[in-house]
Amino acid sequence: MRAAVLGVTGYTGLVLLRLLAEHPQVDDIVPVSSSQPGSPVDAIDFGLSPAIASKLRSTGGKTIAVDEAARLAAKPGIDVVFSALPHVKSAVVCAPFLGRSVVIDLSADFRFADAAVFAAVYGQAHPRPELLRQAVYGLAEWHTERIREADIIANPGCYPTATLLPLLPLARAGLVDGTVVANAISGISGAGKKERVDLLYSERTENAGAYNPGRSHRHAPEIEGELKAVRASLSLLFTPHLAPLKRGMCVSTVVRLAKDPPAEGAGSVAAILSEAYRGRPFIRLTGPRVPQTRDVWGSNRCDIGWQREGDHLLVFSAIDNLVKGASGQAVQNMNIRFGLDEAAGLPQHGEL
Amino acid sequence: MRAAVLGVTGYTGLVLLRLLAEHPQVDDIVPVSSSQPGSPVDAIDFGLSPAIASKLRSTGGKTIAVDEAARLAAKPGIDVVFSALPHVKSAVVCAPFLGRSVVIDLSADFRFADAAVFAAVYGQAHPRPELLRQAVYGLAEWHTERIREADIIANPGCYPTATLLPLLPLARAGLVDGTVVANAISGISGAGKKERVDLLYSERTENAGAYNPGRSHRHAPEIEGELKAVRASLSLLFTPHLAPLKRGMCVSTVVRLAKDPPAEGAGSVAAILSEAYRGRPFIRLTGPRVPQTRDVWGSNRCDIGWQREGDHLLVFSAIDNLVKGASGQAVQNMNIRFGLDEAAGLPQHGEL
Amino acid sequence: MRAAVLGVTGYTGLVLLRLLAEHPQVDDIVPVSSSQPGSPVDAIDFGLSPAIASKLRSTGGKTIAVDEAARLAAKPGIDVVFSALPHVKSAVVCAPFLGRSVVIDLSADFRFADAAVFAAVYGQAHPRPELLRQAVYGLAEWHTERIREADIIANPGCYPTATLLPLLPLARAGLVDGTVVANAISGISGAGKKERVDLLYSERTENAGAYNPGRSHRHAPEIEGELKAVRASLSLLFTPHLAPLKRGMCVSTVVRLAKDPPAEGAGSVAAILSEAYRGRPFIRLTGPRVPQTRDVWGSNRCDIGWQREGDHLLVFSAIDNLVKGASGQAVQNMNIRFGLDEAAGLPQHGEL
Amino acid sequence: MRAAVLGVTGYTGLVLLRLLAEHPQVDDIVPVSSSQPGSPVDAIDFGLSPAIASKLRSTGGKTIAVDEAARLAAKPGIDVVFSALPHVKSAVVCAPFLGRSVVIDLSADFRFADAAVFAAVYGQAHPRPELLRQAVYGLAEWHTERIREADIIANPGCYPTATLLPLLPLARAGLVDGTVVANAISGISGAGKKERVDLLYSERTENAGAYNPGRSHRHAPEIEGELKAVRASLSLLFTPHLAPLKRGMCVSTVVRLAKDPPAEGAGSVAAILSEAYRGRPFIRLTGPRVPQTRDVWGSNRCDIGWQREGDHLLVFSAIDNLVKGASGQAVQNMNIRFGLDEAAGLPQHGEL
Repeated sequence: MRAAVLGVTGYTGLVLLRLLAEHPQVDDIVPVSSSQPGSPVDAIDFGLSPAIASKLRSTGGKTIAVDEAARLAAKPGIDVVFSALPHVKSAVVCAPFLGRSVVIDLSADFRFADAAVFAAVYGQAHPRPELLRQAVYGLAEWHTERIREADIIANPGCYPTATLLPLLPLARAGLVDGTVVANAISGISGAGKKERVDLLYSERTENAGAYNPGRSHRHAPEIEGELKAVRASLSLLFTPHLAPLKRGMCVSTVVRLAKDPPAEGAGSVAAILSEAYRGRPFIRLTGPRVPQTRDVWGSNRCDIGWQREGDHLLVFSAIDNLVKGASGQAVQNMNIRFGLDEAAGLPQHGEL
Repeated sequence: MRAAVLGVTGYTGLVLLRLLAEHPQVDDIVPVSSSQPGSPVDAIDFGLSPAIASKLRSTGGKTIAVDEAARLAAKPGIDVVFSALPHVKSAVVCAPFLGRSVVIDLSADFRFADAAVFAAVYGQAHPRPELLRQAVYGLAEWHTERIREADIIANPGCYPTATLLPLLPLARAGLVDGTVVANAISGISGAGKKERVDLLYSERTENAGAYNPGRSHRHAPEIEGELKAVRASLSLLFTPHLAPLKRGMCVSTVVRLAKDPPAEGAGSVAAILSEAYRGRPFIRLTGPRVPQTRDVWGSNRCDIGWQREGDHLLVFSAIDNLVKGASGQAVQNMNIRFGLDEAAGLPQHGEL
Repeated sequence: MRAAVLGVTGYTGLVLLRLLAEHPQVDDIVPVSSSQPGSPVDAIDFGLSPAIASKLRSTGGKTIAVDEAARLAAKPGIDVVFSALPHVKSAVVCAPFLGRSVVIDLSADFRFADAAVFAAVYGQAHPRPELLRQAVYGLAEWHTERIREADIIANPGCYPTATLLPLLPLARAGLVDGTVVANAISGISGAGKKERVDLLYSERTENAGAYNPGRSHRHAPEIEGELKAVRASLSLLFTPHLAPLKRGMCVSTVVRLAKDPPAEGAGSVAAILSEAYRGRPFIRLTGPRVPQTRDVWGSNRCDIGWQREGDHLLVFSAIDNLVKGASGQAVQNMNIRFGLDEAAGLPQHGEL
Repeated sequence: MRAAVLGVTGYTGLVLLRLLAEHPQVDDIVPVSSSQPGSPVDAIDFGLSPAIASKLRSTGGKTIAVDEAARLAAKPGIDVVFSALPHVKSAVVCAPFLGRSVVIDLSADFRFADAAVFAAVYGQAHPRPELLRQAVYGLAEWHTERIREADIIANPGCYPTATLLPLLPLARAGLVDGTVVANAISGISGAGKKERVDLLYSERTENAGAYNPGRSHRHAPEIEGELKAVRASLSLLFTPHLAPLKRGMCVSTVVRLAKDPPAEGAGSVAAILSEAYRGRPFIRLTGPRVPQTRDVWGSNRCDIGWQREGDHLLVFSAIDNLVKGASGQAVQNMNIRFGLDEAAGLPQHGEL
């Protein structure tokens, strides 16, 4: 397989490069950068070994510009395009590849079926609304069958991935009701590699706190939309927090058990989740043990735990925001879309 | 004034030493240690300057053993005893000082009026149940008048301090109802200076997650008890998290607005809080801005913010767990008890 | 006393504000900012308590613009001006204050007596070469007598402060010879509050390494110049490192003992240093114990240790780069210059 | 291949498990633990995915006790034994495996050819001095040929690995002379997973400094011995530092150029190093760019840079202390010993 990666200098682009470089079915990677075209990839990020050049043969180990990538798009040969470009720009640059290549977009551009919702949440008109009906929301374990057929896969946000994976099966089963109160902690890399004072080391170390609480974070409508699609009675209060981590995300969710739950309450949580995720390599159910972000650091896993407290259910999940929350899930979606082993090339173990 | 500090080698003891060393009305500090008696204080913790010796004249700059302290207790001259000893041990060691000295206890021993509650929460019989009726819960801004008269001041836990200060005035005013969902993030120093593998640097960095969720943390009954004392209809789900901070604590709380709130809903939050904390030097109301732990690092402040979301209220608070959450509030309680300026010797500004 | 602080929004400016706010002899602070004029100081940095307003009466708690400050300069009343502005700009803005106010400059503008050296090191012509002869290099414990008379005090760089304090007395005594190999580790705040990707949390955490080694760091000529002034035979190889600290700096120095040392070799190190720093409140000699940065975090101390290894001497020092390495030493210089207690308003103890 | 890992619960044991689990030629791993025998491996460390069980078939996914391992040692079938046990204990437990299995020992037990040196450095008699002549010092790129034949491979310490790799070729070539001044910074995981207060998160964050300087660290004789073996005129002053990193190590070394160097001085450094490490997959020469620990985080690389300053040479290296500094080099040694691809199963890229 041949893969293009648009926007390789950001954190998700750099993780995509690492994952694809180790992927057994990917032979050639085309690294595309608007900010640093023509640069040797192993000089953009000194973490990358010069050995990566063997997978970058078609560009001689260097990045190419977006324009050049567009010329590539006009010729057959690219099986899959991963876009780690900013939203709005991403849809525009990806569009010409459609028809010849599968597009897996890590921006928000294809996450909402409705262009008006996109405009409301992101404050800009959607640049390619006509493409939205081709897109499938790429929550890999949830929309698996639709992903197998998709031309455009909208890779979910990190907060939605971590929040939805434990909740969706419970919501579909009618186990929970009312207002979902989800509190998340994210590593700083989730904010990207940007020249922003508020992301400096000296600003973030020894510092934690909530931001954009309630309904004001852009991922809140993405989460609530998926929840309501399976259980319309649910609503969401979502409060993200930053803490001094580079990578990692955990979500602690409180929700009321439904008055007439399908079975005996929280006792059935294990059964519902086990059934929903049977055979899925990246879901680990930990029962009453609360997963911690370190458990999944560097891996594509989402670990899920839960406890019942009276008539409430507490649900806990942990992911690596750059892997299962971004680039890892994108590769998992490629695997599913191309009929490969879902786990091919993806780390199972969290780094120590 | 002359102060004894029992248990100076732990984190709260060491912060107490620093605060008392700079306190304008404290002339002499008697540092007591069971683990390192007879040690020069500036060799127990190299952060302490040798200059501290001028405030430790009566012990020649060295710690004394607990037994020696007991002999001191039999003689007049110690105005106030701060105990940073472990629970159960603390009440036993403090008891002989009563009558001659005011006791400010940072352990859990005097936090519950009912010895049976203590036994249920801490899994041990209370060692001095007869003293409980003399104790006042030392939430400085809330029980101020009773603290002025108290012989024993039970310094609150860090989580209760940060959770209760924003909620109590709103609860008393009848503004909120139902289940309070409070999620907290704490710095690692809150777990103390213990030889525990799970507190190692290599275990806690790049790691975040919940622990003891729902009602299982020992501070949950402490919080719920104070809440129910002003509004019996409230209940609590409290989920603490650890994140890679040394110091700092923030709490994000979601609670339903009461059906018949006293005024126009969240609009009155500002009025209620302003009224409750008028003139109090360590409460900063930030309105819709969410306070961050760094704002209060090293200071005795509790910063409080809030936002309304439909029929829910989101409340945010931040403290330094070792200062307002422990040693700083203890000194504040001393100031109140002895009729000094409430802010004497206490840092107003968060460190950069 | 009345003090102006030019450039209050950077890290050194913000630490200056905190120190001056607690200084017993400073009644009024005039905060000046080119980037955020007209802003309430406690909204520029939420760590600052609103209580600071009582020391900012003449500007109503707000910053004023540099232009306004210049008008102030034309009138009497400002006793001391601290400049935390960037180099070149600093000398220009400070110049009009001279004659009426003492200038304490935290930039590099007045550190070299020779404008040609400045131009060589900083790559720009010196903007006010005629003022250089009025300046005294403000290494507080070393040039104390000259500081008492100075109109312009050039506050030393952080690396020079930490490297020179242990070495200068030994060099003056003729104890050491040859090439001084100094390796330093600095906290990230030393690089300032700048919109730079390489200073992001996600770039600096879990990352350490040298930069600008040998003679290429701008502080190397500053260090070497002072060393050679007392012992011309010394030369310097200086290698700074960054590690994931916000604040803190340590220097490990290796130097050969002179062939004919004044006394019995390293045995006299203690005597020389004790004599040089007798009665100085911010020098702590730790003997063979190696000082650590945490010992001095937040304090104005420089802790110094040493060990002899054969014919080499190993010397160790630790400071807080923002306090003794910048703003704290600036206030210490003010104290010396105005005949106050050298330690007035300056923290002795490192924070826990 | 079948591999046993003795001591799987420490950091090096856990990294070995991860590496061997992904190794293409390793079919079965026998995890041995004295502290937690009989435990499911994925419950000792929740970072490990349950998927690891497929490589632990012979023990049913669980650890076995050291005694049981000894019984295993008596039967054929274990190709290689990795020991991550403490020194002294390691040699004792490994001895019975000799003859049937290759032993790769990560402790210090087989690093010195002379038992008297071991006793002097580690303060204990060597438990199996008769085995020392069978051991080869496993600095993989340096003693490659001898490793191919070795029965016991003494995996080098982390500091020696990082310090020696850049220096040995230069020393052998006669390029450098005199006292080598090496300063290292290590991540905290290098101290192991021990119940020690000085390794707590709250003790190590915002803290950096030297320890065991000069010749007092146990790795100093290990480094100096290898250096003197190729150039007797060299001596060493080695000063390690801790900084707040979990993983990572960098070394900054200053050494004098020899009076009569083989070629034109530092100009030949590139030639010497390129020649010495031609074709070796884990050495990256970065020229004047100083390598940083993040470049190699999680990888088995040692990145090496250098600069000439007058008659001195500055040399810089970076490794991951748990990978190239311990478990990764151990697997590399296995690869070399068994004639596999040297890079099999070993990460090339540093994690972001």
